[in-house]
Amino acid sequence: MTDFQPTYFGKFVNTTEDPELFATYKPKIEAYKARLAAGVLPEYALPTDLLPQKLGVDATLIATKHLSDSELKIVDTPAYILVDEIASGKLTSVEVFKAYAKTATAAHQLTNCAMELFVDEGLKRAEELDAYYKKTGKTVGPLHGVPISLKEHYNYKGRITHGATVGMIDNVTEGFCSLLELLYNAGAVFYVRTTEPQSLMHLCSNNNITGLCKNPANTALTTGGSSSGEGAIVTLKGSAMGVGSDIGGSIRAPAAFCGCWGLRPTQKRVTELDLTTNTLGAPEAVVAVLGPLARCAQDLDLFMKVQADSKPWENDPTIIPLPWRTVAAPATKDLKVAIMYDDGVVKPTPPILRGLKVAAEKLKAAGATVVEWESFGVEELVATVNCMYNSNGNTAQKKSFAKSGEPLQELTKIALSFGKGDEMLTALEEHMLVYTRETYRVKYHNKMKELGIDFILSPTYASVAAKPETIHYWGYTSLWNILDFPNVIFPTGLRCDPSLDAPDKSYQPRSELEKYEYELYDDAENFKGAPISLQLTGKRWFDEEVVKASEIIHKIISQ
Amino acid sequence: MTDFQPTYFGKFVNTTEDPELFATYKPKIEAYKARLAAGVLPEYALPTDLLPQKLGVDATLIATKHLSDSELKIVDTPAYILVDEIASGKLTSVEVFKAYAKTATAAHQLTNCAMELFVDEGLKRAEELDAYYKKTGKTVGPLHGVPISLKEHYNYKGRITHGATVGMIDNVTEGFCSLLELLYNAGAVFYVRTTEPQSLMHLCSNNNITGLCKNPANTALTTGGSSSGEGAIVTLKGSAMGVGSDIGGSIRAPAAFCGCWGLRPTQKRVTELDLTTNTLGAPEAVVAVLGPLARCAQDLDLFMKVQADSKPWENDPTIIPLPWRTVAAPATKDLKVAIMYDDGVVKPTPPILRGLKVAAEKLKAAGATVVEWESFGVEELVATVNCMYNSNGNTAQKKSFAKSGEPLQELTKIALSFGKGDEMLTALEEHMLVYTRETYRVKYHNKMKELGIDFILSPTYASVAAKPETIHYWGYTSLWNILDFPNVIFPTGLRCDPSLDAPDKSYQPRSELEKYEYELYDDAENFKGAPISLQLTGKRWFDEEVVKASEIIHKIISQ
Repeated sequence: MTDFQPTYFGKFVNTTEDPELFATYKPKIEAYKARLAAGVLPEYALPTDLLPQKLGVDATLIATKHLSDSELKIVDTPAYILVDEIASGKLTSVEVFKAYAKTATAAHQLTNCAMELFVDEGLKRAEELDAYYKKTGKTVGPLHGVPISLKEHYNYKGRITHGATVGMIDNVTEGFCSLLELLYNAGAVFYVRTTEPQSLMHLCSNNNITGLCKNPANTALTTGGSSSGEGAIVTLKGSAMGVGSDIGGSIRAPAAFCGCWGLRPTQKRVTELDLTTNTLGAPEAVVAVLGPLARCAQDLDLFMKVQADSKPWENDPTIIPLPWRTVAAPATKDLKVAIMYDDGVVKPTPPILRGLKVAAEKLKAAGATVVEWESFGVEELVATVNCMYNSNGNTAQKKSFAKSGEPLQELTKIALSFGKGDEMLTALEEHMLVYTRETYRVKYHNKMKELGIDFILSPTYASVAAKPETIHYWGYTSLWNILDFPNVIFPTGLRCDPSLDAPDKSYQPRSELEKYEYELYDDAENFKGAPISLQLTGKRWFDEEVVKASEIIHKIISQ
Repeated sequence: MTDFQPTYFGKFVNTTEDPELFATYKPKIEAYKARLAAGVLPEYALPTDLLPQKLGVDATLIATKHLSDSELKIVDTPAYILVDEIASGKLTSVEVFKAYAKTATAAHQLTNCAMELFVDEGLKRAEELDAYYKKTGKTVGPLHGVPISLKEHYNYKGRITHGATVGMIDNVTEGFCSLLELLYNAGAVFYVRTTEPQSLMHLCSNNNITGLCKNPANTALTTGGSSSGEGAIVTLKGSAMGVGSDIGGSIRAPAAFCGCWGLRPTQKRVTELDLTTNTLGAPEAVVAVLGPLARCAQDLDLFMKVQADSKPWENDPTIIPLPWRTVAAPATKDLKVAIMYDDGVVKPTPPILRGLKVAAEKLKAAGATVVEWESFGVEELVATVNCMYNSNGNTAQKKSFAKSGEPLQELTKIALSFGKGDEMLTALEEHMLVYTRETYRVKYHNKMKELGIDFILSPTYASVAAKPETIHYWGYTSLWNILDFPNVIFPTGLRCDPSLDAPDKSYQPRSELEKYEYELYDDAENFKGAPISLQLTGKRWFDEEVVKASEIIHKIISQ
């Protein structure tokens, strides 16, 4: 009936580049960048002499050097405590904001993580919040005074929203997207919009507007993507928490590569009306979700609670009225975790394997139940999700790039060749992909029940942060997008260490793709200091349990 | 980019009929029918002299004539009370079952509502339930001893499940589908599987296996479909409640036309693994939902509560873990209802308009807020959903009919010409349809908020039950399938009355389609006694509120 077989990669023909047309956009790009540069205000900036002159630097050791002790204390306070300190009058919104204005500015100076930086506006908002508090003795909402960073492609009131597409650089969006609106109403302070790659489909950051973003833990490496700037700024304490989005790993890769936390929630729990993307129509076989990046599990929880407590379903009928439940921390002996050491497609590199082994040992020692997850179906699922990404034969994407004729980044070309590339699928072919998805959702769910486990601990990518613009394989993350099981990324506290993590040159890759990815990890010295992070996956819809378990598991592993 | 315009009807070419091949299936059909006929056991059957010899009869006056007073009392007891009476030992499962064996058998004799009738098996199950109760003093679950009728296409342990497709008449299904499994585990007694039309896509009942099912209120009319037999058997008290499914009106049309209650829940609340349909892959732009037909709102509530309390999400990750909430009855003065007198496409006939007007007057008199719903977007939405039904260009359906070469029923041909008919859509075209759907979900939600109303009261179809095999327009129901807002069908207590409901011959139809549908109501005499039922729609995901409000609104209107 249909002999359709999903594939990882198909044919993509680059037909949209137009240097002449693109030249007409260059002044707009320059003006945009000039505004960004002007956003680095001297009173908040890191002194130039502190800025490293080379790559390969650990920026986390630099970003807060210009902060006073009290400012340092502020940016080191988790958001869930910060809100209480502001609400009780111990801290003002302005005090908090000024500390964050410094770290955010420094984060941008060190990594190029911002697309728009408007701390003056943030300060004004903080002043207004303080005035409200002074007048009424009350906060405006549960995030009163919390500085929150935002990936760029969420529609922002009165600002350009381009989604890293040059052709959209004149797109001034009238209002906030639904999520920003609710965060704003909850009292959040906005002051920075962060980078994302062209097409929003790289596990990296490059684009034709503001260029690459650097990994804070090792500035020679990629942040991951597509919420690239969020990974960098949250890790560098440039915001109390951040908002990212994820259709294939876009919250999780940056969180893992940079060393912060990230939650990819189950779909239809976080409102996402009014984002700027290069979609046409509303493909739904695999969908992006919005979610938080933060510096601890409790702050992921806070974000989700505030979002759900605002009852987004009252404005957005696509959102399921599931309240965000407060769940008890599981006792260590009740933790039942399967560990995925290999997805069967691309074997993890030594630092990631070390992280998994340390995790398994510490969990066992603490009394948790730990079993091995025998991967199944990953090859088929990743081919299936790759076909879903481009099921419209790149029609929407090409239309969007043709607008400016902008050159295509290397990883854009890779993303556009995913699945069947330029080949338009039929509706029936897409229905077959969805059938595969539905079948495996049940299989994975049943396998977890059969093993008696509640969580799967796995890599986020086959290695630690890669060199920029190199990653082609997203299977460790996109697997969970197609299955739509929620995940938390957390740092283990371990980092890539050349003395422990030498590449295994004897390994015989099982495919060309694996060979390509495996060889990217060529010399541990190049990846020195890259965080070793892990991905914890739970059952579909049970996001609360994953977040709570990640808090406990992180505590066990990082001790 | 895509100049795709949705249409109501497209081109369908009948290419699957094969009389020679079909002839080879006839003995199987005859054997199937013979087993059905043999299921009419003398001890439960209505005496032959009570069976009407002509059409146009009100079978509701006949179906219980062979019951004793105590049996009559049993079948008149709502399920939510019956469960208590069985649980407290006032009634045995066998007593209850024997009464229902009589009404179910009579219902089938009067309307041809069954595809399989196995009351002997039901009796055995009831005996086992009594033995368990006697031994343990406990019930097996919250539906202990409740006789439940089942639309045929749900996989049934060890029985043929064909979904009204002749080519599937050898398909013995190994296990129960997930919903039947959970109802069984809750204590339900199964004994009858009811009719559905070929293709499961008629608002009528005809198929090549067991033929037409008659409307109990007027046996010359259609039951509606596709849960045709459920509408008939539940109305005739042949089951305490029934299970139907709905992708375009299939629970609601039978409930409305026959005169019982029906709930089309919001999707992903009722588990639906393992149904037999003629689908290929897993289309998801518009999806079928399973739901109850019953004889009062409280029993719809009971069904949904038992389903959710069984935590179907523990076995089925497609189901959202929304508990079924117990909601308080709204005070009449807090009822805020908009009334849709016309969807702008096909104007309702006089009996339906009378029902709506009576409803409005009684609600207003009772103190409720009643406003008029000005229909918008229905034409576009119905064209869109019609295109979704056949987005695979009838590939799946044709494959399924080709298996036996069976002749296509008239309404199958209509259903196969819905949307673009045989034309396969591209994935992008389907994404455009989904975009329309998503946009209108928000628009309808916002319109309800703007009007300050919680419910919309509307027709279920443009008229009362039609003559068999005539309905082409499903807009009053399919509108809510594409929007996925939950609906309850309830009887007003009014029936079509030739002295009040003469056709309005002066009406000038706005389209050929409207002319066709409007003229089906040719002479009120032909529709005498047909129930006037209404459809109450609520906000997406808030099924509990719609069910509870329907109870109150029904009480006000039917008084």
